[in-house]
Formats: sequence, structure tokens, C-alpha cells
Amino acid sequence: RPQGMVQESNFEYREQPIPEPGKGEVLIQNLYLSFDPTFRGQMEDKPNYVPPMQIGDVMRGVSAGKIVKSNHPDYKEGDLVRGAGGWQDYFVPAGDDFMSFEKIPDSVSLPNSLSIFGITGLTAYFGLLDIGQPKPGDVVLVSGAAGAVGSVVGQIAKVKGCKAVGIAGGKEKCEWLIQKANFDAAIDYKNENVYKGIRKHCPDGVNVYFENVGGDILEAALGCLAQKARVALCGGISSYNSEVPPPGPRSLMSLIGTRSRMEGFLILDYEKHFPKAIKEMSEWIADGRLVVQEDMQEGFENAPETFFRLFSGQNRGKQLLKI
Amino acid sequence: RPQGMVQESNFEYREQPIPEPGKGEVLIQNLYLSFDPTFRGQMEDKPNYVPPMQIGDVMRGVSAGKIVKSNHPDYKEGDLVRGAGGWQDYFVPAGDDFMSFEKIPDSVSLPNSLSIFGITGLTAYFGLLDIGQPKPGDVVLVSGAAGAVGSVVGQIAKVKGCKAVGIAGGKEKCEWLIQKANFDAAIDYKNENVYKGIRKHCPDGVNVYFENVGGDILEAALGCLAQKARVALCGGISSYNSEVPPPGPRSLMSLIGTRSRMEGFLILDYEKHFPKAIKEMSEWIADGRLVVQEDMQEGFENAPETFFRLFSGQNRGKQLLKI
Repeated sequence: RPQGMVQESNFEYREQPIPEPGKGEVLIQNLYLSFDPTFRGQMEDKPNYVPPMQIGDVMRGVSAGKIVKSNHPDYKEGDLVRGAGGWQDYFVPAGDDFMSFEKIPDSVSLPNSLSIFGITGLTAYFGLLDIGQPKPGDVVLVSGAAGAVGSVVGQIAKVKGCKAVGIAGGKEKCEWLIQKANFDAAIDYKNENVYKGIRKHCPDGVNVYFENVGGDILEAALGCLAQKARVALCGGISSYNSEVPPPGPRSLMSLIGTRSRMEGFLILDYEKHFPKAIKEMSEWIADGRLVVQEDMQEGFENAPETFFRLFSGQNRGKQLLKI
Repeated sequence: RPQGMVQESNFEYREQPIPEPGKGEVLIQNLYLSFDPTFRGQMEDKPNYVPPMQIGDVMRGVSAGKIVKSNHPDYKEGDLVRGAGGWQDYFVPAGDDFMSFEKIPDSVSLPNSLSIFGITGLTAYFGLLDIGQPKPGDVVLVSGAAGAVGSVVGQIAKVKGCKAVGIAGGKEKCEWLIQKANFDAAIDYKNENVYKGIRKHCPDGVNVYFENVGGDILEAALGCLAQKARVALCGGISSYNSEVPPPGPRSLMSLIGTRSRMEGFLILDYEKHFPKAIKEMSEWIADGRLVVQEDMQEGFENAPETFFRLFSGQNRGKQLLKI
């Protein structure tokens, strides 16, 4: 298991015969892998919202691919599917896992099924709209703004008539936020004081803060809340590779003076509302208000390095890999 | 101003002539003083939900007393009133302050107007019921449980069919919680591991956490939340005398995995609902389900020392002083 930062030596490349689907089963070939910070947490032997991975398990991850053999009447060769395929070329979902994949509609591309219509796009949609409750004219601040979730949060905030302010690391990423991801302003946490940056771009305070990183950035943001602000706690990537969680924000008690609310959420709770979200986001994409941002790497052997890009902050938008 | 712990030398005793009420004014004699941690915060020259006190100001505080001279048609000599009288024997509310006092109904005693029907009792009522949203069978955990707010939170939790677990400092206080304040269990933070204590008394997790203290206790409590828990942030007395706020809880991100909500509130936002709360709490007192807990000290000259009792944890229930 990783001690601190996850690294190449935590993974082993292993070849095995391609499995044969049994009665009622299918064989899926993975064509694209999706990378998500949450799977770093599942590498720890600690309680989580799902059981931790065991040493020797296939590394977990969402994947998209096609049915290459089918012994099941509902699926035929060539059907495109998305599911919890993990880091492997081929797999036969079985037992409890059999329901862990689903057909992808014709209107959706394989990469899009993992990005904007995948967990990260839906997380942005429900986290912002249900937990953040943005109103027109609100100031929406997002950390990890150049990531798969953050870059969608900012764009949906704009659709809803809000001012979108993003926090990201580096000048180039901040330019990307404004030029490609439609943010109104960007704060470069590597080269400026985040608290001062927030105060400058959000002079009347932050109405909605969408949190992806934790640590010092959370501390700065909580110090700049407007009255009755909403903080959507989505993740804390800054500490996913820490052996001990870092201290929380000194500014936490500012929730009292501003009568603000901070709430954690898990995207799986919104499953029955996914179709509505996908329909609405499709419309925004069609009329150009939402641009899908994908960071596509290539080659199965590059899966670990592609995963590390999430933690070194190299990805722009959704981190994917074409097998 | 205080540097760190507030102390005797931050106060000055001053004698002045008793003021004369002008046209339309009244003279009030304070008979009881109420002590509340929030006024410690207002001694700092920092932004707060009200402007800070200035050097030389009368120390702020809620008081109860009687009208001794009246030039106002709505008030007569002998009327009992409660208001923002501060630490002084007599005062003439004027200008913006004129509305800062109100008559006390005949059914309410002067001390009760400052305790159960004062800011602290109402804070317990609205913080628990509106922010905490307790349901029958829920486990309600309260820090600062022997204080003016905490001791009422526990009792109201019991009225609502919940299990009430309190955290307080010292064996004697913990016994007081169970014997006098109707808690089901008490955790002594001075003599036991708080996290283990919570796990022991709340094996299925905490549904509602009512926070009065902050610091390590908040960190332990957030590590023990049940799914969809509610955290009512009322105060953080453990750091009111710190020059720099202490780090927040390392366990903050547990709000995500448990899909929990943490919310700050200010009692003044509930002002229009006070009559309903007072009526309901009066009924609970009448039928013995709510016992008013007052810690009464005596003598105007003891006001600073009585205030310090809040921060050294000496008070049991509401801290008052009879002038």
C-alpha cells in the first residue's frame, strides 16, 4: 500500500489469459480508463464509503469499452458500455459486479461517458446545484478549478448567472481557466496569496464555495464567506497522499458569524436523478454554454503515471487514458 | 484589551453620578447580570457580528432590573425589564439603545429572563431544533454540556425522544450532568479519551452534534458522525482567549463520507419565533421535563471574576450575578 504519495512501485503489471464469459455473462474490452482521486482513498486500509482495496486486487477505476463476447440476451457483441472495469484490458463482470456496467447511449461518446456524463461531471452538477444552491448574481468560488469537477462547476455557475472564480496552481492553468473554461477570474495559489486573491475578486464575499482540495485553501476561503454562504465539500485532494490528515481550517468558526452551511455529499446518492442532469447538460453542450474538457493520455502501460497527474496537478479537465 | 486569557487588569471600576433620564427616557437599575462567552469576542478589535467594544466603554452584557424613574408613557416606576444594560448599576438607554430593553412578563422571574428565557436558553432551543433537526431515537451529543446552552440542549433532546450524551470537564460536572441535567451519559474530557468515550456511548454514531467548544473535542466528535448527521456550530469557547485561532479539526473531511451538514447560526435571526419557544419551554418547565439550571454569584464588584468562571469551566448551567 502507498505510504504517503502514491508511486509506481505500488503497482504491479501482470499478464493473465483473457477470461471466458460463462453462462449469462459477457466479456468486456476496456478502451478508455477514467482517473479519479477517490480511488487513492480506497488504496488505504481504512474505513471509507466503500471497502478498501486488497493487496493484489486489480486497481479500481471506471472504464468505458465494448462487449466482445456475449452469453447474455440483453447484450450483443459491439455494444458500448461503461462500468467499474478497473485497470485491465478485458474483464468478465460476475456476481455482485455483474450490474456494475451499463450501456452507453448512441448520442454519447466513450470519453464523454467518463467525463462530463461520468462521475465527475455529475458531481459538479449535483454538488453545485443541490448543495451549493446558487442564485443568479451569486459569487461561486471553486478550488481545484482546472480539474474534472472544478472546470465543470465554474461553467455551470456561469449558466446559472453567477460569477465564477477559480483557484488553480500556475499561471498557465489560470489562463486556461479564463480562456477555455469560461471562468470570470482565476487565483494562482502557487504565485499569489489566496486570501488576498479571494478578497480582490470577491469583494462582497463568497456565496457558494465548492471545495475540492482542503488545507490552506479551504482556510482562506472560509475566511471570505458572505452571509448565509453554502460550502459544498466534495473532496480534499491536497491531503489524499498524507499519512495523517492535516489540521483543519483555523477559520472554521467563521461559519457561525456568517450563518453559513458546509455540507458533504456523495454522488451515488443522486443516482436516480442522473438522467435529468445528463439531459440538461447535453442541452448546454449543444448550445455551447458548456465545453467538455478532457485530458487524454495514451497507452495502458501509462496508467499509473496518468493517475499521478491528478496529484501533481498536471491535468486540465477530466483525466482519461486511451488504452 | 485582553492579550490571551481575559483578566482582572482588563477592567476598571469607575464611579459616576447616576444619570438623569431626559424627556421620553427612563432610568433602569440593574439587579442581575448575565454572563455570556460571546462578549469575550467583542473585547477584540476584530470584525464580529456586532462592532467591537471600544476601550473605556462599559463592559457589555445582558442585564435584568427595574425602572426607577420614567419620563416615558409606556413605562412606570417598578416595571421589570431586561436589556443590554452592561456592567453598571444604573443606566439610561438613549438613542439607538432605547429599544435595547423590554418588559419582562409577570410569569417570568428576573433570573429566568436571563437564563432559560434569555439568549442562552433560546440558543439551545433553536440551535438544537432548527439546525440539529433531531428525530426520536437520534443520538444527540453536546459539548460544553454543563454550560448554560449545553445543559438545556441535553434536556430538550430528551424531551424530543433522543439519547443525550454530554461532554464536560471533571468527574463532578459529569455526575451533575446525569443527576441534575437529565443526560443519559457523560464524557469527562479531562480524564478520558473523548473519541473513545463517544464511540462507547454512541456506538452507532452521532446523529446531531451541538458544538460549543471547538478544538480537539470537535475533532473527536466529527470522527464519530453517523450518516447524514447534523452539526450545529454554536460556539468555540476553547479558543475565545487565544490570540490566533487554533487549527480546525483534522476530521473535517468526514463530513463527505457521512454526507453530513455543519451549520453556524446566530440566535438573533430567530427573534420573531421567540414567543413560541418561550411558550413551549414554559410548558416543559411546568411539567418537570425541563429544569432551569442557574449558577448565581453575588456582588457587583465580583463581575469580572464571575465572567472568568465561564472560561475556567466553573459554572454549572447559566452564569448569573445578583448585584
